[in-house]
Amino acid sequence: MLTSRRSVQIEWGDCDPADIVFYPRYFAWFDASTAHHFKAAGLPKPDLVRRFQVVGFPMVDTRAKFHVPSSYGDEVVIETTITGFGRSSFDVEHRLMRGDVLAVEGFEKRVLARRKEGGGITSCPVPDEVRALFGAAEE
Amino acid sequence: MLTSRRSVQIEWGDCDPADIVFYPRYFAWFDASTAHHFKAAGLPKPDLVRRFQVVGFPMVDTRAKFHVPSSYGDEVVIETTITGFGRSSFDVEHRLMRGDVLAVEGFEKRVLARRKEGGGITSCPVPDEVRALFGAAEE
Amino acid sequence: MLTSRRSVQIEWGDCDPADIVFYPRYFAWFDASTAHHFKAAGLPKPDLVRRFQVVGFPMVDTRAKFHVPSSYGDEVVIETTITGFGRSSFDVEHRLMRGDVLAVEGFEKRVLARRKEGGGITSCPVPDEVRALFGAAEE
Amino acid sequence: MLTSRRSVQIEWGDCDPADIVFYPRYFAWFDASTAHHFKAAGLPKPDLVRRFQVVGFPMVDTRAKFHVPSSYGDEVVIETTITGFGRSSFDVEHRLMRGDVLAVEGFEKRVLARRKEGGGITSCPVPDEVRALFGAAEE
Repeated sequence: MLTSRRSVQIEWGDCDPADIVFYPRYFAWFDASTAHHFKAAGLPKPDLVRRFQVVGFPMVDTRAKFHVPSSYGDEVVIETTITGFGRSSFDVEHRLMRGDVLAVEGFEKRVLARRKEGGGITSCPVPDEVRALFGAAEE
Repeated sequence: MLTSRRSVQIEWGDCDPADIVFYPRYFAWFDASTAHHFKAAGLPKPDLVRRFQVVGFPMVDTRAKFHVPSSYGDEVVIETTITGFGRSSFDVEHRLMRGDVLAVEGFEKRVLARRKEGGGITSCPVPDEVRALFGAAEE
Repeated sequence: MLTSRRSVQIEWGDCDPADIVFYPRYFAWFDASTAHHFKAAGLPKPDLVRRFQVVGFPMVDTRAKFHVPSSYGDEVVIETTITGFGRSSFDVEHRLMRGDVLAVEGFEKRVLARRKEGGGITSCPVPDEVRALFGAAEE
Repeated sequence: MLTSRRSVQIEWGDCDPADIVFYPRYFAWFDASTAHHFKAAGLPKPDLVRRFQVVGFPMVDTRAKFHVPSSYGDEVVIETTITGFGRSSFDVEHRLMRGDVLAVEGFEKRVLARRKEGGGITSCPVPDEVRALFGAAEE
């Protein structure tokens, strides 16, 4: 499976009065890393949206484990992998590294979603063409 | 002119390592106060959008002056007034009070905006009906 | 066990281009709800920090399940309970309700933390006095 | 005067339901650009804090003018200059460019601040050594 990497510079405004990253920021970075991962696979989210008439891949379940805090001035690297596909869902893992140290782990379950007639959104199957980009076997 | 008020509870995650509010948060609160102000005037933003076929009132120019910092646990009150209308623009002032102390002043110039054919947005005149809700004289 | 409630007004700036809450915002609200829960129990976080010489209760593991999206203009209620205490950790559950509908569930494992000599932070036992406030049996 | 540049990738979560950047995000990026500017001048904020016993350079007045909106997927460049120094204050200008287009202008007045005995912070003179790094004439 494809693994992509991007670095994040931790800014003053990402940190809280305990001098460490305010943890919801990690989820925002992981979200951006998932988008970046699609780009790294050759299918930026805007292209995905246009080519497959979807609205995106909303989150259904996400989790993070915080092993080591990071602070203002740190530069971290997020490694992202799609670890599996369901019919309309996929699982993402993020490993946020401070040098060689695994600082935060992130887990996401997302579904590919389309607008429903009459409003709202509904899940739709992940095209084989999309799976293939991430090195997943076809269905 | 109508003045509306709403209170904001300052949370841990709003503050930075200097133990004070990270100032971009004030702009988010002021934005919400402007929306609240329309609601207080009897025209919630979703109604405005629906009734007048606009997308909203994007900001063209905003400023804030920071007199006294606030910290986690403080409860502040934001007082909001539309101080003037142009043809398609209006000026908003926010006064963020900690008790009797004027802690932050916010200023906004916004324009009413509509979607353009072919994409993008463009300004459109503020309806007299909208002006009247805020106690402004008709054009 | 004590359950506390607080309401959250969903603002424009909390939502993303899909017209729904950008999910890291839920984690920020849950964090504020945990702080509010301590306040509801009679021990606001600033008092906790002062009385027990701690820096706070950093997150070690958090998860959220998203059942129903919420949008700009919605008012939701977050119900918060500490469901269990370990030696220096505790588990929090949040139920974010849109009317009668369970929209998002949040789960947190946190540890009580103290500054270490020489820098950094370390976990410390949860005082019985703190447990008792939430209706937990003493150790 | 020294001008520094850094690029910002606009993410999904930076944008609002109108499909454009939620403007408080610009202020967060400008804040990071000011920090980056000190780093580019050879004095990263953590060094500034340590060497001159300051807590940072809190904002006293900031303004932004929004000329052209940006959206998810855009990459922008922020050009930052300190345009003048007062005794304990300095003025910063940010030009956020989308290619050759000036999209947003940011203006900041900040003061160098020190912790006061008994709590709170107070302004302190900008050392000549600091001014010199940005190409400012000595006082």
